[in-house]
Parts: sequence; structure tokens; C-alpha cells
Amino acid sequence: MSETYPPIDPPRRLLFGPGPSMVAPRVYAAMSRPVVGHLDPFFFEITEQIRELLGYVFSTGNHFNMAMSGTGSSGMEAAVANFAEPGEKFALLTNGFFGERIGEMARRQGADVVRLETEWGAALDAQECRDFIRRERPRVVAFVQAETSTGVWNPSKPICEAAHEVDAIVIADCVTSLGGMPVLVDQNGIDIAYSCTQKGLSCPPGLAPITVSPRALDRRRARTAPVHSWYLDLTLLDTYFEGHRYHHTASATMFYALREGLALIAEEGLEARWERHRRNHLAFVAGIEAMGLKMHVAEGHRLWTLNTPCVPEGIDEAKIRQYLLQERGIEIAGGFGPLAGQVFRIGTMGYGSTAENVLLILRELEGALKQQGYRPTGDAAAAAEGALSAGVS
Amino acid sequence: MSETYPPIDPPRRLLFGPGPSMVAPRVYAAMSRPVVGHLDPFFFEITEQIRELLGYVFSTGNHFNMAMSGTGSSGMEAAVANFAEPGEKFALLTNGFFGERIGEMARRQGADVVRLETEWGAALDAQECRDFIRRERPRVVAFVQAETSTGVWNPSKPICEAAHEVDAIVIADCVTSLGGMPVLVDQNGIDIAYSCTQKGLSCPPGLAPITVSPRALDRRRARTAPVHSWYLDLTLLDTYFEGHRYHHTASATMFYALREGLALIAEEGLEARWERHRRNHLAFVAGIEAMGLKMHVAEGHRLWTLNTPCVPEGIDEAKIRQYLLQERGIEIAGGFGPLAGQVFRIGTMGYGSTAENVLLILRELEGALKQQGYRPTGDAAAAAEGALSAGVS
Repeated sequence: MSETYPPIDPPRRLLFGPGPSMVAPRVYAAMSRPVVGHLDPFFFEITEQIRELLGYVFSTGNHFNMAMSGTGSSGMEAAVANFAEPGEKFALLTNGFFGERIGEMARRQGADVVRLETEWGAALDAQECRDFIRRERPRVVAFVQAETSTGVWNPSKPICEAAHEVDAIVIADCVTSLGGMPVLVDQNGIDIAYSCTQKGLSCPPGLAPITVSPRALDRRRARTAPVHSWYLDLTLLDTYFEGHRYHHTASATMFYALREGLALIAEEGLEARWERHRRNHLAFVAGIEAMGLKMHVAEGHRLWTLNTPCVPEGIDEAKIRQYLLQERGIEIAGGFGPLAGQVFRIGTMGYGSTAENVLLILRELEGALKQQGYRPTGDAAAAAEGALSAGVS
Repeated sequence: MSETYPPIDPPRRLLFGPGPSMVAPRVYAAMSRPVVGHLDPFFFEITEQIRELLGYVFSTGNHFNMAMSGTGSSGMEAAVANFAEPGEKFALLTNGFFGERIGEMARRQGADVVRLETEWGAALDAQECRDFIRRERPRVVAFVQAETSTGVWNPSKPICEAAHEVDAIVIADCVTSLGGMPVLVDQNGIDIAYSCTQKGLSCPPGLAPITVSPRALDRRRARTAPVHSWYLDLTLLDTYFEGHRYHHTASATMFYALREGLALIAEEGLEARWERHRRNHLAFVAGIEAMGLKMHVAEGHRLWTLNTPCVPEGIDEAKIRQYLLQERGIEIAGGFGPLAGQVFRIGTMGYGSTAENVLLILRELEGALKQQGYRPTGDAAAAAEGALSAGVS
């Protein structure tokens, strides 16, 4: 092959899907800094900063705060593979695609998966969860705090309380909440929380931040069945990040990015960041409702990071997405499974969660809908601006 | 946390260890290009370029050429987890740390691992391997083509031939050969070869390139036992990269880097690149021997990418490494396990494999040895330069 390859020239997308979201310029800058080795003292300075910053962003006093060298799904697999045991009862509380994925992973580990299922788009019911956990008395309880497939926020605290009553440990998927909503690991009682880098943290994909409680670590140490995954074995990873003994060749570049994404959150302040996400989400909803669309998820159960307006009757959502991507350079997503064709999934998260972006995506979505003959019932931009100024006061 | 975080300012290391190696400037530039989504048509343009370029660099007509979203060890785990089956015979031919790691992973999958072990630093013996495979008649044969722990090059073709006689499929670890030595997947008959990005490909760590033969894919499709890993399940990954159905959120950034690293190889030409690595390796060896050190691996079995000179008597290798890192900003590595304290591991690979770097590392190593009272027996630089000009002619 003697041809030459031109530099990579990606289209400049405005990323308003469920992630990847827009990457902060400081994160790109960090990634261009020189690579150091995976056992270099400087690398471990960075991992210690990440340990501390993740403690802040997860709101936990846990010491085991680190990142798996894979995308968010590798965090899910690490959580499941280390704590689901063959033949042992694994309670899955599910109301979406990512809940189902946890169940699929647990079955692959040979666990006895028992399920409490709630309709996609509704939140898990605290009392139903409590009753289910008390009845089933599982070893592990797993649920999704922020369901990326539906835009639903699930209640964490009652699930964790019931789980601890029966001595189960709790896995919570925080992929779409970390850095945008109050994950509150310790206050909720979550034992293992994992996330990704490409949503609320404003980094490219590539790492899966994870935190593990001392209680869960004790459980892990007492485990006798081998963990099928060597790559995601938490005890080996702890020996690497804590004891500096070689496990795998972690990517300095990706850890630089994560450190920078987390530093941006610390500088903004976690509460201020949540408030920014809440305000921009509310402005988006005000605009959506003003143009006559309904939100799929009931008020009070919606994510601030990812919005799921219903597709109006007679509108082809795939065509809307295609038009926005190809003609306007804007990425949004559609629904999965039972929600296919029913909802849009529009992210307002991380670096991309700004008032300007809310107005932009409302305007663009409205334009795309109008192309298919949709007639807005009111002024989306005015409603969003109204909500924004109300939110500020 | 209201403090501010200064920009990440890594020490500028000269990376002459076993990897990460020096990253090509064009790769850093590619990583600063805007992220696109994991289902964006542009992302799949990049993955198709990678498919083609990996075919070239692995020297294979396979269609399944892709990258796992993890480091090199995730490639190893993908190979093992998809092809090792509970209770089935898995033949491990091992002569180093990474061979042992394959065995550990296969045991975690429940495979019946049978081992043929050769001394660390010696190459696998072709006839012994053939006899072992014919006697054991395993379902899978695994070996390391380029053993990163010892610097040994193992013979691929006789192993693959014997394996195919008994209808076994062959996994070859090409972590330290890809992009620097002739991996020659098709010519050797390797069924599954995996590698990493941070050695011969001159990228940061973060992906594990892999190629899978049609024969191995048939075996994978016929498998009835579930693959424990969902994250590394090759059939799901094929559906993603080939069918563009969502699996995980692959990192556009890391795929940009890989495409650029591979494009650099295509532009240089694979044979020219091998020759560059061979010549620089020979110059390094000439210099090492001129200063009175011995190579641990016998001539003809040495890697061109990673050199393992023996530590002279009376020299503390840990102190040499520490001095080079802290005082000179140079990373080299030491030996593992039975070779701990016995050898240095010095990489001359990828972007870092240049005549200038060979002369630099020889000079620096000599300086460090002299500090501990070592007296070189001859002129390392002159010997290396002599070898370089001989190599050129």
C-alpha cells in the first residue's frame, strides 16, 4: 500500500444524543500531552487525583474509586462479573434497555436472575422494589439510576435500604447521571456505581469510572468462585492502582482526559453543575411543551441529562434524525425496543448543557418537524427563555 | 472543591520500555479531531479503513479485522473467552509471562488447560510443539508469537500446521510483533491474532486490534456454551462493526488514533518498516555486545522490537532503571518472574525505532552502568554505527 492517507477530517457534529456528548476543549488539550508509561510515578499521580475527584463526583468516602480500561459497558461488566456468582440469586429491577443488559450479563455469569420489571418510561416503584427484595432475599440487587433508553430517574435510596436489610449488595448503573445529576453514592447506600466518560464528564468514550464500597470489597474478597474475567477482576485492578503492580497497560491519554473532565466539575462545583443541568433541562421541556409535544416520562421522574419527548403522530422520527444529522450536523437519537419510533432521545449534558444549546436544539427540532408538516402550537424559544430567566432568579 | 486544577504537565519521557512506545505526532493530531457518535456514518468510514489497514498490517485476507475497546489484554481475553470452552482441551505453549497469562484466562473460562512449557528466554521448539499437539489433540492451541517478557520470537507456522492437523484453532499473541515484525497471519495459518496499539503501531494504549479467520468464526458460531463476557463477545461485536447495530459506545478518538497509526505503516510500507526495525535492532545488539554485555536470547530467536540484554554481574538493574527515569527521563523495563533482576527490556519499536534513538539509548545505558562501576569492553556507539552503515549498504 503505497498510497497516502489524508488527515482525518471528521464532520463537526453537535452531539445532542445520549452520548458521546460534546467534549470540553480542555479535555482535547489534555489528550495531546505526552504519553507516560502505565507504571510511571506521574501516571500514578494522575490516578490518585482521579481517585479523589471521583470520590467528590460520586459523593462518596469510598477509597476504591477508579476507572476500568474500557467503555461504560465494561464498567457494567466489571460490576456484574465480580459480584454475580454462579447459582446465586441476583435481583434485577428493570425498566429499560440497560436494565435488561445487566440481566443478560448476570445470566452469562451463571447467576440465578430474578426480575422485577416496570414499564419502559415509568420509574421503578419504591414499595414494589422493597417488597420484591424482601421476598426474594437476593445476594445482589442491580438497577439503573438513570435509564439512558427511556430518560427515567429511578429512586436509589429505598432500593439500597431494602437490599441492605437482606444483606444484599447493590449495583447501580450511573452512566447517564454522573456529572449531571446527584448520584449520591454514600447517601443512597449504593455499593457499586459505574459510569462512562462520554456523557456528564465531557470526555471522549474510553474509560468506565467505578466506585466500590468497603462492604462490597469484603464480599468480593470472600468470593470463592473464580471471576471469569481476568481483565475486569477488581482485586487485580486494586493491586495495580493501589499497589502499583502491573496488571494491564492503562492508557495515560485516557486518564489525562478523565482527570481533566473531573477537574472541570470540581472547578464548577458539583451543586452548581447539577443546577445548570436542571435549569437547562427545564428550559428544554418548556420549549418542547410550548411547541405542542409531550414528554414521555412523567414530571418528577425525568433525567436532567437526557430528555425523551414523544414523537408527534404522523411524524417519521428516523427521517427527523437523518435530516438533522445530514443537513444540520446535529446528532440526536431515537427510542429502543418498545419505544422505537415513539420518542426522541435528546441529551443536554456535560459541556453541552448550555442555554444556547437548548435554544439551538429546540429551533432545529422545530424546523425538522415543520418540514414534515408539523404545526407548533406555540413559541418554543420564548417558553424556554422564560424558563431560563425564571430559573436564574 | 473550589480549587483550580492546573493543566496536566507530564514529564517528557523517552519511552524505550516494552510499551507504551513513543507516539507519532500525527497520531496526537488525529486524537484532537472532534468526536463523532459511535453510530455516525463517519465513524463507520473510519472502522472500514481500519478493517482494510489491519488486513494489510496483519497480512491477512480475513474480513473480521477490528479492535476491541480495551487495551491489549482485552484482546487476549476476547480471544480466550470466545474460543476456550468449559471442559474442553486448551493447549498452551508457553515460555514467558504472557503465555502464562493466557493460561490463567483460559482456566477462568473453565477450559481444561494442558501446557507445554519451555524455559523463559528460549524459543518454543517446533518439533516438541508438533508432538505435543498431536498427542493432546486439543480444541484450541495458544502461544505468544513475540514474548514481551523475554524478547523471544516463537515459530508460528509449525504450531499452526500441527494444530490444523488435529482440527484445533490457533490463538497467537502478536502484542509485540504487529507493526514491527512479520506477523503474517495467513501465511502462518494463525486463526486469531490480537495486538495492542501502544507498541509497533505508535499510538497510545486503549484498543486491541484483532483478526479472526473464517474458520474460527465458524467455530465461534457453532459454540453452544454462552460466552461469559458480553463486552468482548465477538458475535455481538461483529453485529456492531459489520451490521452497525449498537453494542457499546466505541471511542471515535481512539479509532482515529488507530487509523492514523496504521496509515503511517501503509505509507512507510510493511516490508520497509520491518527492515527498519531489524536494522535498528541489529545496531542495538552490536552496541550492547561491544560494551561487553550479552543478549539473553540466542541469535535468530530475538525480537526486533524488544531487546533483552543481560544485566552484568554486580549491577543493580532496579537502580539503573530508576536513574534513567528520574535523572534522564528515559523509561526502560526490567525482567519478570525468573528473569527479575537478570535482564533489561529495551524497546526499539514503532515511531521510536530510529538510528538516533539506538545511539541515544546505548549512550545513556552505558552512562548508567559506568556510574555503578561497570567498565565497557569496547565502543558501543562505533559498533552500532558500523552495523547501521552495513545494514544500509
